[in-house]
Amino acid sequence: MAYFDAASAAPLHPVARQALLASLDEGWADPARLYREGRRARMLLDAAREAAAEAVGCRPDELVFAPSGTRAVHSGIAGALAGRRRVGRHLIVSAVEHSSVLHSAEVHRADGGPVTEVAVDRAGAVSPSSYAEALRPDTALACLQSANHEVGTAQPVAEVAGICRAAGVPLLVDAAQSLAWAPVEGDWSLLTASAHKWGGPSGVGLLVVRKGVRFAPQGPADERESGRAAGFENLPAIVAAAASLRAVRARAAEDAARLRELTERIRARVPRLVPEVEVVGDPERRLPGIVTFSCLYVDGETLLHELDRAGFSVSSGSSCTSSTLTPSHVLRAMGVLSEGNIRVSLPPETAEEDVERFLSVLPGVVAGVREKLGAPVSAAGAAAVEDRGDALVVDAVGRRCPIPVIELAKVIGDVPVGGTVRVLADDEAARLDIPAWCEMRGQEYVGEEPADRGSAYVVRRVS
Amino acid sequence: MAYFDAASAAPLHPVARQALLASLDEGWADPARLYREGRRARMLLDAAREAAAEAVGCRPDELVFAPSGTRAVHSGIAGALAGRRRVGRHLIVSAVEHSSVLHSAEVHRADGGPVTEVAVDRAGAVSPSSYAEALRPDTALACLQSANHEVGTAQPVAEVAGICRAAGVPLLVDAAQSLAWAPVEGDWSLLTASAHKWGGPSGVGLLVVRKGVRFAPQGPADERESGRAAGFENLPAIVAAAASLRAVRARAAEDAARLRELTERIRARVPRLVPEVEVVGDPERRLPGIVTFSCLYVDGETLLHELDRAGFSVSSGSSCTSSTLTPSHVLRAMGVLSEGNIRVSLPPETAEEDVERFLSVLPGVVAGVREKLGAPVSAAGAAAVEDRGDALVVDAVGRRCPIPVIELAKVIGDVPVGGTVRVLADDEAARLDIPAWCEMRGQEYVGEEPADRGSAYVVRRVS
Repeated sequence: MAYFDAASAAPLHPVARQALLASLDEGWADPARLYREGRRARMLLDAAREAAAEAVGCRPDELVFAPSGTRAVHSGIAGALAGRRRVGRHLIVSAVEHSSVLHSAEVHRADGGPVTEVAVDRAGAVSPSSYAEALRPDTALACLQSANHEVGTAQPVAEVAGICRAAGVPLLVDAAQSLAWAPVEGDWSLLTASAHKWGGPSGVGLLVVRKGVRFAPQGPADERESGRAAGFENLPAIVAAAASLRAVRARAAEDAARLRELTERIRARVPRLVPEVEVVGDPERRLPGIVTFSCLYVDGETLLHELDRAGFSVSSGSSCTSSTLTPSHVLRAMGVLSEGNIRVSLPPETAEEDVERFLSVLPGVVAGVREKLGAPVSAAGAAAVEDRGDALVVDAVGRRCPIPVIELAKVIGDVPVGGTVRVLADDEAARLDIPAWCEMRGQEYVGEEPADRGSAYVVRRVS
Repeated sequence: MAYFDAASAAPLHPVARQALLASLDEGWADPARLYREGRRARMLLDAAREAAAEAVGCRPDELVFAPSGTRAVHSGIAGALAGRRRVGRHLIVSAVEHSSVLHSAEVHRADGGPVTEVAVDRAGAVSPSSYAEALRPDTALACLQSANHEVGTAQPVAEVAGICRAAGVPLLVDAAQSLAWAPVEGDWSLLTASAHKWGGPSGVGLLVVRKGVRFAPQGPADERESGRAAGFENLPAIVAAAASLRAVRARAAEDAARLRELTERIRARVPRLVPEVEVVGDPERRLPGIVTFSCLYVDGETLLHELDRAGFSVSSGSSCTSSTLTPSHVLRAMGVLSEGNIRVSLPPETAEEDVERFLSVLPGVVAGVREKLGAPVSAAGAAAVEDRGDALVVDAVGRRCPIPVIELAKVIGDVPVGGTVRVLADDEAARLDIPAWCEMRGQEYVGEEPADRGSAYVVRRVS
């Protein structure tokens, strides 16, 4: 059994467990009360705040505990936007932020607030200059993750923070994926994080608002946590969260080096072991524990199930594994293949043998899924193909990812070089995966045209 | 050591502790994931939801877990108001709701929403007819607590629910103080509760929305908890919360009978042991474990400290014990004395000896505080008294509760029957405590007049 989904949630750190147990007895009372049980709870809360602030690199009175990373983001964005209302309402986010950031931006947009979504390159990184270009006189807030949760790419946060600072615009950094490894560098204004990403318990997020940042908490008033996180403090869990953050930081350099070596192995060997694979994300500027790749002609959900049966827990950004049946917005923004997508995110304690076993199992699993789907090597085909000489039409309407790409791959050799294939499809993933396939196979993606049902994706054979 | 503040937070129930420990190992993963660790977490979450729904008396799919009782209230009110936006925006709350409800009402009012605050009687209860009168064609939502958190008075929830149902208006019941004892009766539409009031861990609230109630979750979208409670589920704590709710319910009848006997003892004996005391709240229709009283001529903060030194942890609604220096809104709405206020709320495991010890210690503690403050029996007095024959003026401006009342009590005997005393005071508590003193002492409260600084409170000597 190997759990390779630490970027979703990490198993509870032994130190977190120990701290949780100890504070169940000492930290259940209301820290706002003046009697001894309350004072004891207050001391635990204060100590946890100091420890967390030290790990973040801020003052304790700049940090509050929220019920989750998601809630910290929601409160942080809403409070910062309201605090700068006089300046304007313009919000900047990157296209690859966590859904908590993008959903906050959607609410803001629905309320009439202008939002600029900064694009990323094919590795998933923003460029500092694109943030500089996005800034306007009415920009209230800019948001940028420290590193991407799906592909591991590190963002140029310090540079973007400098640009924002020079423009007088606060930058909120979602540090959920990186805070376990190091403090966020640069002159940022707000920061959010989530304890269960570093082995702390669930139910604890961090919201940091630097002194001097205008901030107006939204929603009903509440006296707790400086008015920035309503509700009774999740106290034993907060103590456990702070304790485990210190513990993971103490071993961060060592753990990072080990994980980086293991993910480097996967990055290097998967393309050699499995045909038609695209490893995505920046190979250098990245988190130590995450590696993500997509397998052509593979259905992500089946792949997840087969890997689970083989004893590996991983996640996927493929459309068939999301409840909305759309591919991950991160992969879409990067313009990379989404079909057969797998994110491997290793917990610090990952054994080398488990990675090796994963590498030995993966090729067979992928081949098995491809065989079942009738990937291009085989002759079976269910899509209707209409031959107009040098312009084939493939009707894959009603067929789900990865079928439209499989059908395209099967017939591309049937048109002469210079000829085109039109793939009719109504699956969302096709919009992303057909261009990505062209990029991978050196064919020309001509473009998308409206069709009776869905769209027609036109590909020209180049070689 | 005796902890008598269960209405703030209860120590962790042994069953909660056990369930928490067990689910730390099984319930840390993301319940939205399809691999085995995720499926295990999902099973725990589903089982907890079923157990909690059974205790509430609702369907599992009507119940979501929020990060706290406060957040459940905030989300519940906002969602119900938005869901009924087409009908209107009128909100009804009682004057003695928990601050989470009143703060939600404040936000709504600030946003232009009309709010009716239903008054309570001197025992702290609303009358069903006052809710009937408050209903309007544009009423979107009514809120009523099942029982009051400061004085223990039970509210006529079933009757009010019936009235609201007949008018087609949803009723939200804040059941934080009563859910440990029994399901809420009547045809309510929404319900909220908080696990750490029944010995569950902090970080878990319940929000129940009956099928058929129009509900539009506010804030950024999130897929978790049916879109009604954003953020990663606080899973091991949720399991512990549900387990301990079952456990306290199993012993509820027995525990309630015991606690009722103990609080009855305090209700009956405190007025005999301590002079000048008002026991507040309904003597019959009340929670089993709460009893609240106020001591004339006593400073609540000093009283709390002295009781803490004597080994008793209690809370207080006196102005001097709140960060805003205003008396509890509950005591204010009831029109009862707020000075020297003490709420005793007993956990189920309270030992009879501890209650007896409390009763033996209390008279000396109160007498000591009164002596220090120079209560009426003594001759010391610092307020300037201006004698105009049958109309004395006492200048207590700048003096804090309970001094204005003490000064009034000292001089009332100096005016003839029919004469008046004008107390000049700028302490908020005087507005509540001077009329309450008149009621207790059978003197006539004439009224309040504006003065240069603060107000003049006019009292006529009747006896």
